[in-house]
Amino acid sequence: MHGAMDYGRVLEEISREVQREFGRGKVAGYIPVLKAVPPRKFGMAVCTVDGDEHLLGDAEEAFSVQSISKVFTLMLALQYVGADLWRRVGREPSGTAFNSLVQLEAERGIPRNPFINAGALVVTDCVVSHDAAALRSVVGLARRLSGNAGIHVDAEVARSERAHGHLNRSIAHFLKSHNNLKSKVEEVLEVYFQQCALAMSCLDLARSFLPLANEGVMPGDGQRLFPKRRVKRINALMLTCGLYDGVGDFAFRVGIPAKSGVGGGIVGVIPRFLSICVWSPELDPTGNSLVGTKALELFTTKTRVSVF
Amino acid sequence: MHGAMDYGRVLEEISREVQREFGRGKVAGYIPVLKAVPPRKFGMAVCTVDGDEHLLGDAEEAFSVQSISKVFTLMLALQYVGADLWRRVGREPSGTAFNSLVQLEAERGIPRNPFINAGALVVTDCVVSHDAAALRSVVGLARRLSGNAGIHVDAEVARSERAHGHLNRSIAHFLKSHNNLKSKVEEVLEVYFQQCALAMSCLDLARSFLPLANEGVMPGDGQRLFPKRRVKRINALMLTCGLYDGVGDFAFRVGIPAKSGVGGGIVGVIPRFLSICVWSPELDPTGNSLVGTKALELFTTKTRVSVF
Amino acid sequence: MHGAMDYGRVLEEISREVQREFGRGKVAGYIPVLKAVPPRKFGMAVCTVDGDEHLLGDAEEAFSVQSISKVFTLMLALQYVGADLWRRVGREPSGTAFNSLVQLEAERGIPRNPFINAGALVVTDCVVSHDAAALRSVVGLARRLSGNAGIHVDAEVARSERAHGHLNRSIAHFLKSHNNLKSKVEEVLEVYFQQCALAMSCLDLARSFLPLANEGVMPGDGQRLFPKRRVKRINALMLTCGLYDGVGDFAFRVGIPAKSGVGGGIVGVIPRFLSICVWSPELDPTGNSLVGTKALELFTTKTRVSVF
Amino acid sequence: MHGAMDYGRVLEEISREVQREFGRGKVAGYIPVLKAVPPRKFGMAVCTVDGDEHLLGDAEEAFSVQSISKVFTLMLALQYVGADLWRRVGREPSGTAFNSLVQLEAERGIPRNPFINAGALVVTDCVVSHDAAALRSVVGLARRLSGNAGIHVDAEVARSERAHGHLNRSIAHFLKSHNNLKSKVEEVLEVYFQQCALAMSCLDLARSFLPLANEGVMPGDGQRLFPKRRVKRINALMLTCGLYDGVGDFAFRVGIPAKSGVGGGIVGVIPRFLSICVWSPELDPTGNSLVGTKALELFTTKTRVSVF
Repeated sequence: MHGAMDYGRVLEEISREVQREFGRGKVAGYIPVLKAVPPRKFGMAVCTVDGDEHLLGDAEEAFSVQSISKVFTLMLALQYVGADLWRRVGREPSGTAFNSLVQLEAERGIPRNPFINAGALVVTDCVVSHDAAALRSVVGLARRLSGNAGIHVDAEVARSERAHGHLNRSIAHFLKSHNNLKSKVEEVLEVYFQQCALAMSCLDLARSFLPLANEGVMPGDGQRLFPKRRVKRINALMLTCGLYDGVGDFAFRVGIPAKSGVGGGIVGVIPRFLSICVWSPELDPTGNSLVGTKALELFTTKTRVSVF
Repeated sequence: MHGAMDYGRVLEEISREVQREFGRGKVAGYIPVLKAVPPRKFGMAVCTVDGDEHLLGDAEEAFSVQSISKVFTLMLALQYVGADLWRRVGREPSGTAFNSLVQLEAERGIPRNPFINAGALVVTDCVVSHDAAALRSVVGLARRLSGNAGIHVDAEVARSERAHGHLNRSIAHFLKSHNNLKSKVEEVLEVYFQQCALAMSCLDLARSFLPLANEGVMPGDGQRLFPKRRVKRINALMLTCGLYDGVGDFAFRVGIPAKSGVGGGIVGVIPRFLSICVWSPELDPTGNSLVGTKALELFTTKTRVSVF
Repeated sequence: MHGAMDYGRVLEEISREVQREFGRGKVAGYIPVLKAVPPRKFGMAVCTVDGDEHLLGDAEEAFSVQSISKVFTLMLALQYVGADLWRRVGREPSGTAFNSLVQLEAERGIPRNPFINAGALVVTDCVVSHDAAALRSVVGLARRLSGNAGIHVDAEVARSERAHGHLNRSIAHFLKSHNNLKSKVEEVLEVYFQQCALAMSCLDLARSFLPLANEGVMPGDGQRLFPKRRVKRINALMLTCGLYDGVGDFAFRVGIPAKSGVGGGIVGVIPRFLSICVWSPELDPTGNSLVGTKALELFTTKTRVSVF
Repeated sequence: MHGAMDYGRVLEEISREVQREFGRGKVAGYIPVLKAVPPRKFGMAVCTVDGDEHLLGDAEEAFSVQSISKVFTLMLALQYVGADLWRRVGREPSGTAFNSLVQLEAERGIPRNPFINAGALVVTDCVVSHDAAALRSVVGLARRLSGNAGIHVDAEVARSERAHGHLNRSIAHFLKSHNNLKSKVEEVLEVYFQQCALAMSCLDLARSFLPLANEGVMPGDGQRLFPKRRVKRINALMLTCGLYDGVGDFAFRVGIPAKSGVGGGIVGVIPRFLSICVWSPELDPTGNSLVGTKALELFTTKTRVSVF
């Protein structure tokens, strides 16, 4: 039913229909450099397992990936330590934001899942402990998956993260006090701040996530990047934990595994069909791109595909 | 790739492989009548959108559906009030069990989702408020979906629920104190206790959920039972909220939308392919069937289908 | 230093100085009959261990004692079961209001202390289980301590409590589900609703609490009502738990053991000197009489006595 | 009734009666240097407002004061900023330990009271921000109050605190992320770690707290050290918040304002009579000296004085 789908036309329709959504969200304010991003930026990219690519608007402009980078470090950590990771971090949705430190305290330093900040810090620690060039490996993975050798860390964003990172520092020391951080706190934080500051475009991200829509194989050259089993699991984690506290609402409205970042990006996959990325900086109260979520909802509604 | 799948053979393999899992869980102990169920009961049923049915073991023996009934009342409530339901109940996973009353209190009487007890009580209240014969409608829906006119409420189980229902009574009065229960507390509880006491077999349940695997259409006669949009949403809710506090782990290991009950049943769907139900009374610590979860994990691993 | 204290003059000064505080609080709104009380009512009564009594304003007008009644049931429960009570209820302050059900859940049905609603329900259950005429005994104790045989339950207030008692019903069923309620839920609630509806004046209450200022002995006739040890303990409980979530602030500003009710009454003792009761219906955000707290703060400041 | 009290004899009796309590608690294990303290150490010191001093056992041996130091920094902070302190820290008991970070998160960085770690860090920050020689001032105050110029910080304990201070670092960064820490995190922590490492004896501490039993006046020379009002408030805070999560139980059993430390010390006052300090390193589950609490309970029972 999807063979004849004209994704280009669908993207054009979405572009028109989301116009009325602009101005209803708020650009992330926690670090000044993110706050300065023009709120009307809007881009989309779709990559199909058949090799097609469709772009819309600012699809090739790099933005701050923020929490989307947690998928890259998760890929590396699973490659380095496999299922041992799950002794140090859970796989359950976290409930409300309000619970973040509550649950970490109640569960004695075992974060709920790899996508909340506490869990991502444990994942990063795992990478740092197994890889002396951790940051370079993260950047290298993003470059290899996207095929874009120019991807880099935005130094100004990283500096800003570092300067305003007291909550992450608090979480990291809390994990350390529960012996759930092996490397030095500042070392882990440094990689974490830099990975969040990766600058990538919608096209870069859609390409990077395409293997997750294709059972772990890069469609272009047929190279297997991840075992099929791991792809299923990363997708499951994204669907149940990938959208901060809006995960249930996103599944309900959009219905695909995806990961968002406070830079306004959301990248997702429809297994066996395509990967898709949207960027729009205005966020809803749960911290997810407001227009981006609407755009993805329109996409799965118009194309009539979702995982459900 | 699934056309040639021999589901009968897969079920046989699963039957052998789960043998070593028996004895590791615990039959639900909160009401005596459930505790008396033989722990080694095991049945499976698969119904495909193509019309095939595959049965294994005790697949035709009725058991207490418990929380699985929440899907039936949700179907009715959405039919009666549509999206208005979401003003009274959320759509987000609840985090840990430990949070149940915490969150209900913190969020001033708006339950996290329709599948935790508080949310299910609001859903039942919604049905009771719109339908003088609420219980009869619930039973009628189960009969119509399963094609089994003999489905009924187990009076002894209902009596037992009523006698040991203090926690649900506490939750119902709490909802009432926040004006999120329209009907009388005891009236809502009575329907709730009885719906949980519905007795159905794996086959009954797999047949009942088949329309959810087929975009809302009953495969047999092509009759549309639910709009496609509603099917997508019920499936999304099951995937993010259907397995109590084990929802993330279940998505990770099994990867399909499903709903469990403390009677030991789990029923799920693989959209566009099939519905599947398993019954095994021993529960894991999160309250889901231990052997049942393993059986479903083996099923999606062996058949290589999941929503991811 | 207190021998020459002219308490009458101190009360007059307070009366003038609290005038500007009226209108800043809110009369309890949770049941209509309390809401109808004129907000400017103001009375005070002081009873000294030497036998003096000083009255001010509406000191002889009966008002709804509400939670102050919890001290009477605590006296009875300690008489009936002694230290066994502490197996069923704690002795620690409860932290914030926000924690009420949270902590009850986290601590598996053992309320934090006898003065939060959950704890008071356990105390009442204790009285009900040991005394077929529980309510009559509570009223009898209030009459005997105050020397006022006319004290009675206000039937309209009791009816209103019953009609709006869903939160207390919720708590009672929660306790029952944790086996921390021996008698029938509705039986305990009935006594509880009626004891809260006791109508007493400032003078009644100050007289009733005088033995707690005099090591357990009624000053008038020298009769020992409670062992000295029990007096110390009830006073300690009032100081650490008697003012809802304002206990720390009250100790800080006023510095005496006291118990408040949402009817606007606060009754306290200065051990070895006097008992004191104030009534003013407007409440502060923690549910304590706003003008009443101010009046007591002025009293301990002007007389320079507190327990500290 | 207290004039003729032979405190020396009372201490001797207590010394005999507490023998059977040894071995039932556990020496603080969170830093190695505290763990090494001999568990049977036991000392008591009583200083009366009349100028008498009574010593028992190891009353003159210095131990690690730990949280008792929070009273000294509170004294300085109140001297520096007065009531402004209460905009940054509350005055209410904290409920259970389990809530520490929960409440700090729920209340957006305003600690419950000055004696939980978060509150004490804010108090120390307040001192550090107003006093370039903060630590020297803290040590100076301890020396002046105790009359012992030899009081100093135990460098090994301070080093150990620093090395194992991840939880305090976590809390400090959390406060910083809520803008409730003015000075640099590491600067505040450094003073905090050192103040906790102050080494003082029972006699030093009882002497230091004597002005709190004497309305702010040093009995020896009649010098006023604190306004009477501040003494009342510090005593109120100790009674409602001074014993970690055992504050209600301590008030119930002992009934005096006091402050404990995990080094095994507890120092308290009976206003208008005396100050008292006990040291015994074995702690109960709430972190308070087990034998020390028993000794103080025996003291108030035998002497029949408490604030109640």
